[in-house]
Amino acid sequence: MSGPPTAGTRPDEVRRHNRTALLRRLHVGGPCTRAELAAELGLNRSTIKALVDGLAEAGVVVEQVSVKRTGAGRPSLLVLPQPRSLWVLAVDVGVEQTTVAAVGFGGEVLGTRGWTLPRGSGSPDDLLAKIGAAGRRLAERIGSEPVGVGVSVPGVVRRDGYVHEAPNLHWEGVPVGERLSAALNRPVLVGNDAELGALAEHTRGIATEAADMVFVSVDVGVGGGVISERAALRGSGGYVGELGHMVVRPGGRPCYCGCQGCWETEIGEDALCRALGLPEGSPREAVVGELRSLAGEEPQVALTRMREFTDWLGLGLINVVNLLGPQLVVLGDLLAALPDAVVDEAAETVRERSLVSRAVGGIRIVASPLGKEAKIIGAAELAFQQALSG
Amino acid sequence: MSGPPTAGTRPDEVRRHNRTALLRRLHVGGPCTRAELAAELGLNRSTIKALVDGLAEAGVVVEQVSVKRTGAGRPSLLVLPQPRSLWVLAVDVGVEQTTVAAVGFGGEVLGTRGWTLPRGSGSPDDLLAKIGAAGRRLAERIGSEPVGVGVSVPGVVRRDGYVHEAPNLHWEGVPVGERLSAALNRPVLVGNDAELGALAEHTRGIATEAADMVFVSVDVGVGGGVISERAALRGSGGYVGELGHMVVRPGGRPCYCGCQGCWETEIGEDALCRALGLPEGSPREAVVGELRSLAGEEPQVALTRMREFTDWLGLGLINVVNLLGPQLVVLGDLLAALPDAVVDEAAETVRERSLVSRAVGGIRIVASPLGKEAKIIGAAELAFQQALSG
Repeated sequence: MSGPPTAGTRPDEVRRHNRTALLRRLHVGGPCTRAELAAELGLNRSTIKALVDGLAEAGVVVEQVSVKRTGAGRPSLLVLPQPRSLWVLAVDVGVEQTTVAAVGFGGEVLGTRGWTLPRGSGSPDDLLAKIGAAGRRLAERIGSEPVGVGVSVPGVVRRDGYVHEAPNLHWEGVPVGERLSAALNRPVLVGNDAELGALAEHTRGIATEAADMVFVSVDVGVGGGVISERAALRGSGGYVGELGHMVVRPGGRPCYCGCQGCWETEIGEDALCRALGLPEGSPREAVVGELRSLAGEEPQVALTRMREFTDWLGLGLINVVNLLGPQLVVLGDLLAALPDAVVDEAAETVRERSLVSRAVGGIRIVASPLGKEAKIIGAAELAFQQALSG
Repeated sequence: MSGPPTAGTRPDEVRRHNRTALLRRLHVGGPCTRAELAAELGLNRSTIKALVDGLAEAGVVVEQVSVKRTGAGRPSLLVLPQPRSLWVLAVDVGVEQTTVAAVGFGGEVLGTRGWTLPRGSGSPDDLLAKIGAAGRRLAERIGSEPVGVGVSVPGVVRRDGYVHEAPNLHWEGVPVGERLSAALNRPVLVGNDAELGALAEHTRGIATEAADMVFVSVDVGVGGGVISERAALRGSGGYVGELGHMVVRPGGRPCYCGCQGCWETEIGEDALCRALGLPEGSPREAVVGELRSLAGEEPQVALTRMREFTDWLGLGLINVVNLLGPQLVVLGDLLAALPDAVVDEAAETVRERSLVSRAVGGIRIVASPLGKEAKIIGAAELAFQQALSG
């Protein structure tokens, strides 16, 4: 840590810090005994007892005799998170589809609402009103208010929920956080979709063990989320890096951002369509269908057909790996449907040609197992991060 | 923060944390009163008194009546860091020149040793032996042992001090940390030169106010250091990102790293020489001299002569800004000598064409005021970071 000194820690902050650590452990890791909590959090048993008693009184956990008995001693009590005691609203604003979900403490999905809109149709006002109404209906059904709201938007998003630009939604300057917060009367956090994909993979997906990881996804555009030393990497003003607008092919196709030959113009949805011989702007199912069928062919067939796409994927990944040095790169959303042969070939390019990959001793590049669910899981986790720190 | 829960904080960690915060405040911010320490660190006066008394007893600070008196009350005592009570050895291993400095608590330079070697001459063993001897002579002169050692190396460096590759030194696989630690019998930390440049600018240079900044420097190769939310950004295994090996010109000049058209081949020292009409591999003074003389010409002269260089500088900076979203980019070492017209033109390119710069509302791009001193200042600060946390 560099820069100005951090403020001192007062003893009265310690209890809150410990409570947050315990809540996060239960939320992410699931039920466990007090003894396990003490060992994992490095706290003594009386501290754990006081914290668990307080949470049990508030109805956030219950303690229950474990079904499995080990040995002849007194059975140990399991501490179980109570999903309905503490739940959040998670929203995934997609280019074609919007989903609203109620997610309980511990990760259980308590209910969802969703709808499809033709691309670019509908104003932000209409969509935000629909989201607000869906959220209120979920709250009525559950019978309590959410402790927070997390929203995923495919665009350039500031930490305070202001969406500077979401080109594929045709949004510009929309204060999503402020609007939804007013409609739902709850704290609302908004994140870039790829940032939240990274958070999801890191919290509940394939990247839980990776302290340093990058999530690269294609919905329509190309987005990226970075986890560094277990925390989300954000730039100034809370903006997340825009991996899709790294120029990889100077003088290439013009991009809406003002550059030419951005990674997005070379591996985004339109580039995928071109590689697959589909018209640009084909519906998502058509693209995924074609990728799935190609994945069933011989590796060489997929590689030949997607040669150029694979080369640009590999080149961009070399840059991402050389700049950020992750242990793991997760390819999400449409990229999760790529044939294995394409992913493996791009990974091989990185292994061979990235200085940093060689230094680290091989960086893994894998398709996301959460697929398109990553965004809404990430939106829920964003809301929980804040709610559990209260 | 995502991922596994952080361990709980025990009260016995609080005192150490406060002591570190106080030491860092004095080291970086210089002398101040107890009242100022209390206000800045958010601690009460009795806590500050206990800490300062402890440090005074150990000889690390002295308290002294302030020369300036304000008002008629009792003069307040200034807490002054004692440079010789706690000093570190800072080493800058450069391609042509190596410098060893003793830097005291508070930042005062207590002594230096340095020597020049022709490029690529001398083995790592010889150089490390010379550094060890120079360090021991400095310690003898000061009359005490350093509390730590920080070393800057222009290469791919792991957190534990293992230099994977330092191409311009012709080093490969040198355990610099282990060797120097054995020679000096002290803890040794080794950093990449650009990483330490970033640390220097952030701690004592132009970037003290920037929570998110990127340092881009050209010694022979192109290096980069990133500060994110006031902390150094590192990838897995502790490796720092290699901005110089971002491919900006696919199919361009071959780079030793195995790629073609890396940023390093387009804006590194050889590219600077080409732009200036000097033979590749010209001595550093010739390059700096030519840049200085060009800086004295009309802006248009510098721009015309360095057109291609400026374009590649701007393009790479667009990528760096779009990926990392810093508030400030500092151009260091040889780049610090660029004519203003070149820096301004590259900055203008970024302002116009970077999506993230437009979202953030303008990202500053400036030449480093610390110049080539940044590396050794950073090496000292790396050692102090650890020493002051003890």
